Amino acid sequence: MTAPRVPLYRTIAESLSRDIRTGRYTEGERLPASRLLARTLEVNRATLHQALRVLKADGWIETNKGGGTRVARRSIAGPVIGPAPAWDRIASSLLRRIVAEPGPEPGRTPVYDLSRLAPDERDFPAEVFASFLTEVARNQALLSYGSPFGYRPLRETLAARLARRGVPADPDTILIVNGAQQGLDLITRALVDPGDAVAVEDPSYSGALTLFRMHRARLLGVPLDAEGPDPVALARVLAEKPKLLYAIPDFQNPTGLLVSAERRQRILEAAVGAGVLVVEDAFDADLNVEGELPPPLAATAPGHVVHLGTISKALFPGVRVGWISGPKEFVHRLAALKRIGELTSPPILQAALNLFISRGEYDRHLVRTRTRLRSRLAAAQRAVRESFPVGTACDRPSGGWVLWIQLPRGISGRALAAAARDKGVLVSPGADFSPDAADLPALRISVARETGPDLEKALALVGAAARALLHRLAVQRNGSGKSRAGREEALIQI
Amino acid sequence: MTAPRVPLYRTIAESLSRDIRTGRYTEGERLPASRLLARTLEVNRATLHQALRVLKADGWIETNKGGGTRVARRSIAGPVIGPAPAWDRIASSLLRRIVAEPGPEPGRTPVYDLSRLAPDERDFPAEVFASFLTEVARNQALLSYGSPFGYRPLRETLAARLARRGVPADPDTILIVNGAQQGLDLITRALVDPGDAVAVEDPSYSGALTLFRMHRARLLGVPLDAEGPDPVALARVLAEKPKLLYAIPDFQNPTGLLVSAERRQRILEAAVGAGVLVVEDAFDADLNVEGELPPPLAATAPGHVVHLGTISKALFPGVRVGWISGPKEFVHRLAALKRIGELTSPPILQAALNLFISRGEYDRHLVRTRTRLRSRLAAAQRAVRESFPVGTACDRPSGGWVLWIQLPRGISGRALAAAARDKGVLVSPGADFSPDAADLPALRISVARETGPDLEKALALVGAAARALLHRLAVQRNGSGKSRAGREEALIQI
Repeated sequence: MTAPRVPLYRTIAESLSRDIRTGRYTEGERLPASRLLARTLEVNRATLHQALRVLKADGWIETNKGGGTRVARRSIAGPVIGPAPAWDRIASSLLRRIVAEPGPEPGRTPVYDLSRLAPDERDFPAEVFASFLTEVARNQALLSYGSPFGYRPLRETLAARLARRGVPADPDTILIVNGAQQGLDLITRALVDPGDAVAVEDPSYSGALTLFRMHRARLLGVPLDAEGPDPVALARVLAEKPKLLYAIPDFQNPTGLLVSAERRQRILEAAVGAGVLVVEDAFDADLNVEGELPPPLAATAPGHVVHLGTISKALFPGVRVGWISGPKEFVHRLAALKRIGELTSPPILQAALNLFISRGEYDRHLVRTRTRLRSRLAAAQRAVRESFPVGTACDRPSGGWVLWIQLPRGISGRALAAAARDKGVLVSPGADFSPDAADLPALRISVARETGPDLEKALALVGAAARALLHRLAVQRNGSGKSRAGREEALIQI
Repeated sequence: MTAPRVPLYRTIAESLSRDIRTGRYTEGERLPASRLLARTLEVNRATLHQALRVLKADGWIETNKGGGTRVARRSIAGPVIGPAPAWDRIASSLLRRIVAEPGPEPGRTPVYDLSRLAPDERDFPAEVFASFLTEVARNQALLSYGSPFGYRPLRETLAARLARRGVPADPDTILIVNGAQQGLDLITRALVDPGDAVAVEDPSYSGALTLFRMHRARLLGVPLDAEGPDPVALARVLAEKPKLLYAIPDFQNPTGLLVSAERRQRILEAAVGAGVLVVEDAFDADLNVEGELPPPLAATAPGHVVHLGTISKALFPGVRVGWISGPKEFVHRLAALKRIGELTSPPILQAALNLFISRGEYDRHLVRTRTRLRSRLAAAQRAVRESFPVGTACDRPSGGWVLWIQLPRGISGRALAAAARDKGVLVSPGADFSPDAADLPALRISVARETGPDLEKALALVGAAARALLHRLAVQRNGSGKSRAGREEALIQI
């Protein structure tokens, strides 16, 4: 095997982060002007800007309004609350977004929400769930601490369901967690030290990228083709010995891609060959609208795959139940970690959920959800085809809540998302899903929150905004050369 | 101020852990014999053993059955699941205990459980709670993701309760967490990097010590006297600039100590002077059985104290609700961290709990609980006085679920806990609460799980075991000098 080729900007980013760690550049210090820095490092400015973007995403540096770049200040909460680790830069910017984002709350300007990937609470079978909750709530034992592994009857129910998809599981190899996100956090805590590499699909789920960044992992992206992760790129990345490969084979977030059976096999061969653990996020696996799914990775190579599941995307996320299924010894390590960090998850909700699943209500709900989902995916894809400019690509996924809109070259996903917001439509820019925080010419559309007709209205507005942006871009291209530098600067505004 | 005096065994432990980190001693390598190692390091063997005990508690080394000491092996789960960080040693040993401990499950040998600090589920007002749960469960919005800060009406209710104790709080400075343990985990994640120092009371809550060890903190113990943390020792420890001071002023775990108002003032002066954040764990603050408590630390110095509360010790832990109240900016950082790590806590349980508190049920339950608690504490203390050997000290606390039994010099808390278990009584050895994992001549007794008469029967059995141990010790002392070396060896069996 040839030596892995690390992109130059990555090498530069790592060298600069080392300079910050070792104190060559100190907290709050202004970095040299990019022209000067590029010359010192003997790279061109585009490469330097790419490196700076990575450093900013990883929390090492920050840019101020004047355009200057400084080493991130870590003490932000007064004298007693000491230096914050770099995750804090990520956390703060995330929190600013949470607070700043116009949510779909009543009273605010009406918006179409094509951004949130959470099933619509108006469709929840709350009455049925309430009756199960009432049934279990009088059981006092369920109000005490439970097993750190989770409520055993629920683990039995889940093991049986996993077995139907070919995943060998039993109650002793399953850990109940507060949603798949906590599962991913525990796995990362167990395996990843600051500076360790983690392989991810490029693009990938923004919440996972943020979580890995919080753990100070180096993200190694594997581009996707029409079948799944590109095998050549995957081999190159795995040769760097990442601590894990994070994969979403079923209706990938954000692309909606269903990885083919053949490609799944190749991913496993590569990962097993390189000795890299695969974390399979099956968050959307129950939301297929066209036939059966290929076998999960965990069905084929159970000793090398940790499988993450959740009910948050097909049922109600507020119950906060997800699960990890994997090699027994590793799952036990995660259980101990969960126990140290928060003791247990609420047994009572797990017990009610177990009745909901084992008495068939979950499967009945899935049938209803799939019907809704099928018509929404069709409506959304039709609307994109009709309203977006020539050169836009958007496949209709065979399941899951998301569509990935690839825009004509030159359109900034961030600029389009901002323009769409101005028109009252919330969408997710491709940049949210880029391991390198690159401003991909793409949008992710969630069909979870709006009905077909509203999706069509909203996408017509976004399509018009895309056409307007493209028009402006054409005018600029025909104008002076100045705009080019402007756009280059805009790239590092992350 | 004079230079802080670090105990020699601490210096030795740190130097050895550095040798392991930097590869002088490698994974799985056997350390030189203690006689030789002591000579190399120019310390006596007792000091070396104390240092090794710390290293073992921190997960750097492990001792095998033959008595040899090796650098901990980190890869324990096969080729794909790579090197485990040192927390894993702690996690594994904790998990072994969870699995191995004879729980009070029906069907097993009947035992008296004086070990678990969890209120008895038979006393839970489950019917009332179930009715509130039913009331809120039909509200579909509560089944969706909630705010990462937690359910706002509950934060309002808690803010009002905190204000009654003088803690300035509002819904925007409170973060709901999955029990106080998760609160402590978030705070530690926010502030503590591996190798950082954390100041703790000596002895302190075992779950906090384990959590800090998982984060690879260096624990600096501050001994307690009859009023609270010793001021001279506190000043010395704070001079080492720990990232935080973890304190439990109300019915401290494990000693039951209520820190005096005057001592609280001195703790704050020392912490504010040294610029060290105080984490105040008020887990038992609602369980006073004799009059009012002194003001919480957070009431006096709100800008320097993060206050942790929970309903797990007075009501039902299975609901998994605790809260953090503190400086706004810091609480927001923790909220972002919680959001990245698990999104939100289940809104529905918070809504039901909010009704339970705001409609007065919680305070009614506290009245019943305090009555039960008062008589149990009295019964337990009486039983200790009657059954334990001369030289035993045990104050009756004015609240909280625990009593601290200080045994006559020479009795190993571990040996007595093992002897008690053989008689069907579960108690917690002092070692569980020692930051240095020292085998303190002490036991912690929880009165949460057994009634007064059963506490008396159980403590009579433990008292008899203590007398037997003391007798054997006397015989040994009169016998050959050999036993001394044996006891010294036993010290590092942790």
